[in-house]
Amino acid sequence: ADVKKIAVIAGDGIGPEVVGEALKVLKKTEELFGYQFETEHGLFGGIAIDEKGTPLPQETLEICQKADAVLLGAVGGPKWDNNSKELRPETGLLGIRKALGLFSNIRPATVFDCLKEASTLKPEVLDGTDLIVVRELTGGIYFGEKFRREGANGEEAVDTCVYNVTEVERIVRQAFDIARTRRKKLASVDKANVLETSRLWREVVNRIAPEYPDVELEHVLVDNCAMQLLRRPASFDVIVTENMFGDILSDEAAMLTGSIGMLSSASLGEGSFGLYEPVHGSAPDIAGQGISNPIATILSVALMFRLSFGYHEAAQVIEDAVKNVLDAGHRTGDIAVDKSKAIGTTAMGDLIVAAM
Amino acid sequence: ADVKKIAVIAGDGIGPEVVGEALKVLKKTEELFGYQFETEHGLFGGIAIDEKGTPLPQETLEICQKADAVLLGAVGGPKWDNNSKELRPETGLLGIRKALGLFSNIRPATVFDCLKEASTLKPEVLDGTDLIVVRELTGGIYFGEKFRREGANGEEAVDTCVYNVTEVERIVRQAFDIARTRRKKLASVDKANVLETSRLWREVVNRIAPEYPDVELEHVLVDNCAMQLLRRPASFDVIVTENMFGDILSDEAAMLTGSIGMLSSASLGEGSFGLYEPVHGSAPDIAGQGISNPIATILSVALMFRLSFGYHEAAQVIEDAVKNVLDAGHRTGDIAVDKSKAIGTTAMGDLIVAAM
Ligand SMILES: CC(C)[C@H](C(=O)O)[C@@H](O)C(=O)O
Ligand SMILES: CC(C)[C@H](C(=O)O)[C@@H](O)C(=O)O
Repeated sequence: ADVKKIAVIAGDGIGPEVVGEALKVLKKTEELFGYQFETEHGLFGGIAIDEKGTPLPQETLEICQKADAVLLGAVGGPKWDNNSKELRPETGLLGIRKALGLFSNIRPATVFDCLKEASTLKPEVLDGTDLIVVRELTGGIYFGEKFRREGANGEEAVDTCVYNVTEVERIVRQAFDIARTRRKKLASVDKANVLETSRLWREVVNRIAPEYPDVELEHVLVDNCAMQLLRRPASFDVIVTENMFGDILSDEAAMLTGSIGMLSSASLGEGSFGLYEPVHGSAPDIAGQGISNPIATILSVALMFRLSFGYHEAAQVIEDAVKNVLDAGHRTGDIAVDKSKAIGTTAMGDLIVAAM
Repeated sequence: ADVKKIAVIAGDGIGPEVVGEALKVLKKTEELFGYQFETEHGLFGGIAIDEKGTPLPQETLEICQKADAVLLGAVGGPKWDNNSKELRPETGLLGIRKALGLFSNIRPATVFDCLKEASTLKPEVLDGTDLIVVRELTGGIYFGEKFRREGANGEEAVDTCVYNVTEVERIVRQAFDIARTRRKKLASVDKANVLETSRLWREVVNRIAPEYPDVELEHVLVDNCAMQLLRRPASFDVIVTENMFGDILSDEAAMLTGSIGMLSSASLGEGSFGLYEPVHGSAPDIAGQGISNPIATILSVALMFRLSFGYHEAAQVIEDAVKNVLDAGHRTGDIAVDKSKAIGTTAMGDLIVAAM
C-alpha cells in the first residue's frame, strides 16, 4: 500500500496543542479512506535549542528529508528572542526552507463567512475576497550576504538582495499555474521603479506571460499593492512576489480577512514535497492553557492532502467538517464573539473529527 | 521684512491644478497675516523630461536650493513609464531627495471625521486613529549599489541595502522628538530577525531610547506592523522605519484612513528646510478636467508653515478653513458620496480661501 510519511514538528508555544488535534484528524482520515500515514516527530525551534543546542538538529532535517510532507506547528517565543543568531528559532526556519529547497510559500487569504465580522474591514468590502499570495521563499534579501563594516560615517550594516533568472522563473511559473486553476488573474508585485532585482523580476514575468495567454496579468508596485489590498481586496486572485515583499503583504492580506486564526500555508519545492503550517504563530501568551484554535493546523492537513498527496476528497471532507462545526456556532476564544461560550482546543478538534 | 522663498514645482498630471489652488491659499495668507512669499517655479518630473531632457534640471535644483521650502504637486505618468532609468520621473524624485539632503519623510495618517465612511475599515476601528509615519528617505536599498552580473545560474540582479549609524541616529532622534510633541509613543519597525541593517537599526534605537525616558518605545517587526496597522490603528502614535518599509507602511497607513486624497507630507533635512507634497499621485486619468481634489496640497502648505516657517497660527487658519468647508458638505468627486453633487478643483480652492 501507498504509505505516506509525514514529518511532524510540533515546535513551541501552542504548536504541540494544535498539532495534536491535527493528528486526530489524520487518524480519522485513515479510518474513513483507508489511507496509511507514518508519522515521525522531530524537535525544531526553541525546544530544539533547549534540548539539542540548535534550532534545526541534523536528525530533524533527516526526518523531513525522508518524509513525503512536513506538518509544522509553530516556532519561537520570547525565551529565545535575545539569543545570538545561530541560537534563534527563526534561524532554524530559514535553514529548513533552504535545506529542503522550499522556494515557494503559498498563503491563501480566505474569508470565512461566519468570521467576516471579526475583520476590521467592512463586510461588504470583503465580499468575494479569496486570494492567494505566492511568496518566493529562498532568495532575495533573506539569503543574500549580510555583514558589518567600517564606513566613512562610522559602522555600517549591509544586506544584499540577489535574484537570478532561474529563481524568478520557477516561482512565477508556479504562480501562473495556480492562477490557471482559479480566476485566472495574476498580480506580480515589485518595486521596478527603484530596484534592479525588481526590474529583473518584471522582465522574467513579461517573458513568461505569453505562455499563459488565458491568465490576465497586472504589475503592481509594492506600495500600491499595500493600498489596493485594503481598497479592493476582492479584485485580487493570485499575487506573486519576492521574499521580503511577500512576508509583508501576505501578513497584511491574512489580517484583513479577519480569519488569521484559521489560515493555513504551504511551502513547496520541486515535486510534490511540501511543508504545511498554520499562519498564526506560537502564541506563547496562551500556550499550555488548552484554549488555542486548532483549525488553521487542521486545514493545513487538508492543504497537504491537496497539494502533496492529491487526496482531494479527503481534503474536502476535512474542510466541510470545519465549516459545519463553525456553522453550528462552535468557537474557540480567539474567534468567539461571546468569549464566555468559547470551547477549548481538544473540544474543537473532537467536534471536527466527529463531523468528518 | 522676512520674505520666505518658496520653490514651486507643479509637476505632472493633476499637479499644476492642485498647486494652483495652494498658491491662492498662500496669497490669502499674505493678505491676512502680512507674510511675504516669493515663489519661483521649476520644471520637474515628466514635463522636465519632455522640455529639458532630464527629470531634474540643474536650474530646478538651484531654485530649490535657494528656497526656504519647496511645494511639489505630483510627478509621473504612463507616458514616461517605459523610459530608460535616467529618463523616468521617479529618478528625479530620488535625485532631488538626495541632492537636498531630505533624509526624513513625515506622513501623518489623519482620519477626517467627515470622511471616515470612505475608509474600507469599520468606523469604530478608526476611532482615535492619528498616527505619523517617519520614513528614512535617503538610505537603504533605494540608494545602495545596484547591478546585474552573470551568476552560476545565469543572469542575476543585485540590490544593496546599507545603513550607517549616523543615518539611523538622525532619523530616530527626529522620530523621538516628534513623539514627544504628541502622545509620546514610538514604534520602531524593522526586520531584526532577518536583516543585519535592521539589527543595526534596533541597536541604535535602543541606545538612543534612554535619552527619551518619557517616550514609550516598542519594536515591531515589519510583517507584524502591516497586520497591527489593520488591527489596532489607533494604538500607534509615531512609527519610525527605514526607507523601503516606510514606503510600504506609509501607503498602507494612508489608505486605511480613507482620506488619501486629503493627506499631506513633508520631507525634511537638517535645519528648517523642507519639501511639501500631497500623498496622492499625479492621477493622469483625471488630469486637466478640473475635478481633482486640491485639499492635500493646501494642507501641505499648512504643514510647510508649521514645520519650516513656524507660522502656526496661519497653519491653523488653513486647517480650520478646510474643516469648515468639509463640514459644510462640500466635496470634490474623489470624496463625494453623491458624485452628482461634487464640485471642481477651483470651486473647492475658492471655498477654502473664502473660509480663511
Ligand atoms: C520568523 C521569520 C523569519 C519569518 C519570515 O520572515 O519569513 C516569518 O515572518 C514568516 O513569514 O514565516
Ligand atoms: C515613485 C517612488 C520612487 C517613490 C518612492 O518609492 O519613494 C514613491 O512611492 C514615494 O513614496 O514617494
